[in-house]
Amino acid sequence: MRATLLYQAGDVRVEDVADPKIQQPTDALVRIVVGCVCGSDLWPYKSAPYAEHPRQMGHEFIGVVEETGPEVRNVKPGDLVVAPFTYADNTCEYCRRGLHTSCVHGGQWGVNGVDGGQGEATRVPYADGTLVKLPVAEDSDLLPDLLTLSDVMCTGYHAALTAGVKPAESVTVIGDGAVGLCAVIASKLLGAERIVLMGRHTARTDLGREFGATDVVAGRGQDGVEAVKELTGGFGTDRVLECVGLKDALVQSIAVVTHGGTISRVGAPQYPEVPFGFMEFLRNLTLTGGVAPARAYIEKLMPYILTGEIHPGRVFDRTVPLAEVAEAYRLMNDREALKVIVRP
Amino acid sequence: MRATLLYQAGDVRVEDVADPKIQQPTDALVRIVVGCVCGSDLWPYKSAPYAEHPRQMGHEFIGVVEETGPEVRNVKPGDLVVAPFTYADNTCEYCRRGLHTSCVHGGQWGVNGVDGGQGEATRVPYADGTLVKLPVAEDSDLLPDLLTLSDVMCTGYHAALTAGVKPAESVTVIGDGAVGLCAVIASKLLGAERIVLMGRHTARTDLGREFGATDVVAGRGQDGVEAVKELTGGFGTDRVLECVGLKDALVQSIAVVTHGGTISRVGAPQYPEVPFGFMEFLRNLTLTGGVAPARAYIEKLMPYILTGEIHPGRVFDRTVPLAEVAEAYRLMNDREALKVIVRP
Repeated sequence: MRATLLYQAGDVRVEDVADPKIQQPTDALVRIVVGCVCGSDLWPYKSAPYAEHPRQMGHEFIGVVEETGPEVRNVKPGDLVVAPFTYADNTCEYCRRGLHTSCVHGGQWGVNGVDGGQGEATRVPYADGTLVKLPVAEDSDLLPDLLTLSDVMCTGYHAALTAGVKPAESVTVIGDGAVGLCAVIASKLLGAERIVLMGRHTARTDLGREFGATDVVAGRGQDGVEAVKELTGGFGTDRVLECVGLKDALVQSIAVVTHGGTISRVGAPQYPEVPFGFMEFLRNLTLTGGVAPARAYIEKLMPYILTGEIHPGRVFDRTVPLAEVAEAYRLMNDREALKVIVRP
Repeated sequence: MRATLLYQAGDVRVEDVADPKIQQPTDALVRIVVGCVCGSDLWPYKSAPYAEHPRQMGHEFIGVVEETGPEVRNVKPGDLVVAPFTYADNTCEYCRRGLHTSCVHGGQWGVNGVDGGQGEATRVPYADGTLVKLPVAEDSDLLPDLLTLSDVMCTGYHAALTAGVKPAESVTVIGDGAVGLCAVIASKLLGAERIVLMGRHTARTDLGREFGATDVVAGRGQDGVEAVKELTGGFGTDRVLECVGLKDALVQSIAVVTHGGTISRVGAPQYPEVPFGFMEFLRNLTLTGGVAPARAYIEKLMPYILTGEIHPGRVFDRTVPLAEVAEAYRLMNDREALKVIVRP
């Protein structure tokens, strides 16, 4: 089958790889219908050294079950399913706590004999735990919305939920990428009254306003901080959702959150230490968040999509065939596209 | 009047200072009945440079109201009262949220024309907001217990509460000082099933067991971490209450908390940055806590003391007269005493 391989920074190729096969009785084989490129795929795209055995890319997909191992009970051939961005057994101590990213049997797509999501098919470990059946057909217009349940919508929701966003509160969302925009949707779902979106790309922040942002702050650094302070009577917002992953964004988060407030970070941290010293202690700031256990949220968020209450699939502004996946990476890396669907 | 002054590291003196007077209509004058020395007093005691105008020390006290300004309504001369370790108006936006340490009119004892708690008397700003009347006489045996409401019992409670300790959960308390021991009491109040106290001073950890610790780990570093892991089936505890303030203690906290767990720190951080990078992100760890808004907890915790359900005053193992306060500092700094009451 054809799959996406990253050889090194800037070098994405579609090549033949071995067809996936059932290896464990809990496996399923899934033919991928739609996949996409993630902001986190851009970190290795920017910086990875040359790999002789390149990694299969992609960790978000919707597909059709083609075959199941003898112990798989919850899905069957022909089912349309969505997968979270890590697989999980959904039964271990961590999964029972809703922390599927820490599953004792869990793992990542694209490594250790498991295929990636930017290809024609994949073996799915722990299919009963990992896959969630979708109640639509494979040609449904809702597929882009449902595809966001693999990652970005669940990640935005994780940010808002762990931050403790409650009705009537104020929230700052830092970052106007797909996760930041989904964090706006999630903040609105949880009842936030004021949602300040910090971002500089007008097309994206305009979409953010449609998603529920009440204010947009394009300024960065001290200008941005002062703008948020001015909007909030000098206090800053109750919650800050940090959807970037850079230290500057975290420093900004600390500056715009109120005393006693919470910062949730869902952008993978590109820094080893956090400036949470004596001043942050005096202000009683909380730092939470982390890699989103998407699997824990898929069933919860799906109804909002099926009823049309939310449309997170609007973060996709391009679609490319699998053969042109390298162009999808380029478009996103050059910020010409927000998020790109890849169709095998 | 006589008051405690810190001239420089190791140099504590009792000297005459100006008698306090009502300055604002919201002030009260309080004659101090009992004060005490705090672990946080030991930071300047260890390291302060020489000060020509030394600071009055002490921020924990019970006293009798002697005089009130014309706008004071909640306390009157003759009332026995306890003060939290910062004063606050109890009416501002932050106080209404229970964050009295961020009060817009609040401040610290011993600076800016306000006296300290290790002396004969003090002016109390915002007396209505700051002081809480005690329903006992000044010779009550409960005074040591009630004195802990100024700081250590409320600080231990802040740790457990912000960490989110819930019934049946497991907690590690790092530090066997007065705050750590009060954090054990608080964890038990909140229903924790397993309370692991990490500390190396047997007399203190023995008291911790009486307060509710189910396990004591004397090991430090990797030994201590492995001991906690072994007690918890390899997972670590759900919550960690960091009651020291040193970076080593925070690193230990990160090592003994489970995935998805919460670390609350209430020891004043002696470090500018926290090692919360990518691995802690993958583990979905939360860092919370901060300086405890003691005022928010005094009325809530007092009934447990009045009914005898908790005895946090047992952390006091010495009492000295004011004239010998320097000896109290020495005893605590040399770890010959856990916490010392000072009686003017």
